[in-house]
Amino acid sequence: MRVSQRSKIASFMVMDVMRHAAAKEAAGEDVIHMEVGQPATPAPETARAAAAHGLNSDTLGYTLALGRMNLRQRISEHYRDTYKVDVNASRIVITSGSSAGFVLTFLALFDTGQRVALPSPGYPCYRQILTALGQRPVLIETGPDTRWMPTVAALEAQHHAEPLAGVILASPANPTGTMITPERLAEIAAFCDANSIWLVSDEIYHGLSYDRPAQTALVASKRALVINSFSKYYSMTGWRIGWLIVPEDLVATIERLAQNFYISPPTLSQIAATAAFDGAKELEANKSVYATNRTLLSAGLTEVGLDRFAPADGAFYLYVDITKFSDNAANFARQMLDETGIAVTPGLDFDAHCGH
Amino acid sequence: MRVSQRSKIASFMVMDVMRHAAAKEAAGEDVIHMEVGQPATPAPETARAAAAHGLNSDTLGYTLALGRMNLRQRISEHYRDTYKVDVNASRIVITSGSSAGFVLTFLALFDTGQRVALPSPGYPCYRQILTALGQRPVLIETGPDTRWMPTVAALEAQHHAEPLAGVILASPANPTGTMITPERLAEIAAFCDANSIWLVSDEIYHGLSYDRPAQTALVASKRALVINSFSKYYSMTGWRIGWLIVPEDLVATIERLAQNFYISPPTLSQIAATAAFDGAKELEANKSVYATNRTLLSAGLTEVGLDRFAPADGAFYLYVDITKFSDNAANFARQMLDETGIAVTPGLDFDAHCGH
Repeated sequence: MRVSQRSKIASFMVMDVMRHAAAKEAAGEDVIHMEVGQPATPAPETARAAAAHGLNSDTLGYTLALGRMNLRQRISEHYRDTYKVDVNASRIVITSGSSAGFVLTFLALFDTGQRVALPSPGYPCYRQILTALGQRPVLIETGPDTRWMPTVAALEAQHHAEPLAGVILASPANPTGTMITPERLAEIAAFCDANSIWLVSDEIYHGLSYDRPAQTALVASKRALVINSFSKYYSMTGWRIGWLIVPEDLVATIERLAQNFYISPPTLSQIAATAAFDGAKELEANKSVYATNRTLLSAGLTEVGLDRFAPADGAFYLYVDITKFSDNAANFARQMLDETGIAVTPGLDFDAHCGH
Repeated sequence: MRVSQRSKIASFMVMDVMRHAAAKEAAGEDVIHMEVGQPATPAPETARAAAAHGLNSDTLGYTLALGRMNLRQRISEHYRDTYKVDVNASRIVITSGSSAGFVLTFLALFDTGQRVALPSPGYPCYRQILTALGQRPVLIETGPDTRWMPTVAALEAQHHAEPLAGVILASPANPTGTMITPERLAEIAAFCDANSIWLVSDEIYHGLSYDRPAQTALVASKRALVINSFSKYYSMTGWRIGWLIVPEDLVATIERLAQNFYISPPTLSQIAATAAFDGAKELEANKSVYATNRTLLSAGLTEVGLDRFAPADGAFYLYVDITKFSDNAANFARQMLDETGIAVTPGLDFDAHCGH
């Protein structure tokens, strides 16, 4: 009795580090958690109050597969307010975190064997979900030269070698925090549209940018799919609630998949998320803490000689070059946890080749 | 720009009926909901109180991918108390509802093109998830002769024609409510073990049986995977929380998939679920309402001439033969909703061939 070939993906190392750190804490040791995109703050008070009310007043049964209409409408308003774009609520799908957004998107768009380009370094689950679904991730190497974002030239070369079915972008990116320029985004969107390639834009770190606001791919392409979540800016990771925006003619496909794969997103989380939009004051205060931490950490790391890292325009990560001290990121991270009690995730998780 | 072939699965009609019924309610009409496995009751008070406490005392961040250890341990105790079987907490995986249990199981066990046998009529999402993952559902027709459960003879014939990689059983079954006999379960488990076929047992309706307790497949096979959920007996559908029990040597595979596909199950739901086990009194009272409803409905349907239905040993469904009145279940259900305001789901959802 064998397990499937498709299941032989790598672990999401962040979660493995979390498990090791939890074991240390269970043994009475102190751990400083820097390994995972987990805000230290809870959901905003507005969201928690709405949840408390829902807990007492609602049966909390299944919702429709695409989610509650008032949350979909509230997100539509958010796009009008924040990006000045008109997104009909009918195109907005509530998901069980951005994880579900990715799974639904990849199932809806890509068949077994199809090639999907994604930035490297990048969020490791992209390539592992694609692989487990029988699709082929095509890693586009990025670095300081390309400001850690794919270029049209690199995508074109890959598409020429063998057609791409999709391109995934993330801005602010994980793990670098780097943001794409509006020009690069427009070029890539035009390239995708011209070549009938699906553009999938991971915008989970929107709201957390420090110099200029992030732009949604919806501005650059009418056919882009946008994945977002309440986990990061809204500080609601464990609520597992996010959203997905798709072209109108894809809604029925996504709905069928969502019905069968998820039934519906968590009900209480939907109620809380709707009210999270009213927590702007608290959320902006959280953000200013990230900005302070970013300054402190940038200065402190430089001081100890870890002075090469990607420009973190947004998010709450630093992707730091440790080659001066070690050629093995996994060992370095393990030693750091053991000797200092600071949990970090090795870059290998994000770039299996160069992430050391 | 095309959608994938794999996404061309049927909708889960239950959810479509829910959408139509919701539209009617939005227009001011009264609807009696009998279309979906949705208890009229909320989570037990113990669970809601624990959630209210968690809301105020916990940051509600990500948990470990396999879930919180105290919930896994509580479920282990439940197996000792209820079934007198010893299941190590390390083998118990907390999932985002049984939906995630199925997705994780199918990804872990079956590659593209592999054949998986499942009962027909049966829960439609089994075959649709399998299809979207590129696996091949093999429908085993059941009926009154086989007490709506697969037989070893039928499985053997299919396995002989082309090897099966897995067999899915559900008892009490959806949509019939019928339960497998311990003898049949033992025979099927022995057949699977002898032929290196994975046995997946959907036990989501355990706790809701009316004449005799349901038996877990763990008693019949050391290699069985068991899927369960807090949705039905524990009345927590919208909380999206369930569990999966796997052989020890599969845990690492499931953990990798869970990390990448889900990150972790909803945190507040895990806290509530742990306390749901303390709500037995309330849950047993709910169950006695189902027993009364079952008696009323069986008598009432017989009275109006709908006197042929499967023996509902458990769960809270009746699978009713309407051929006396119509040869089109979808039309019949639509007309019933329009004329009487009673929402039901057509049998077509569960059996595309004979479900009229």
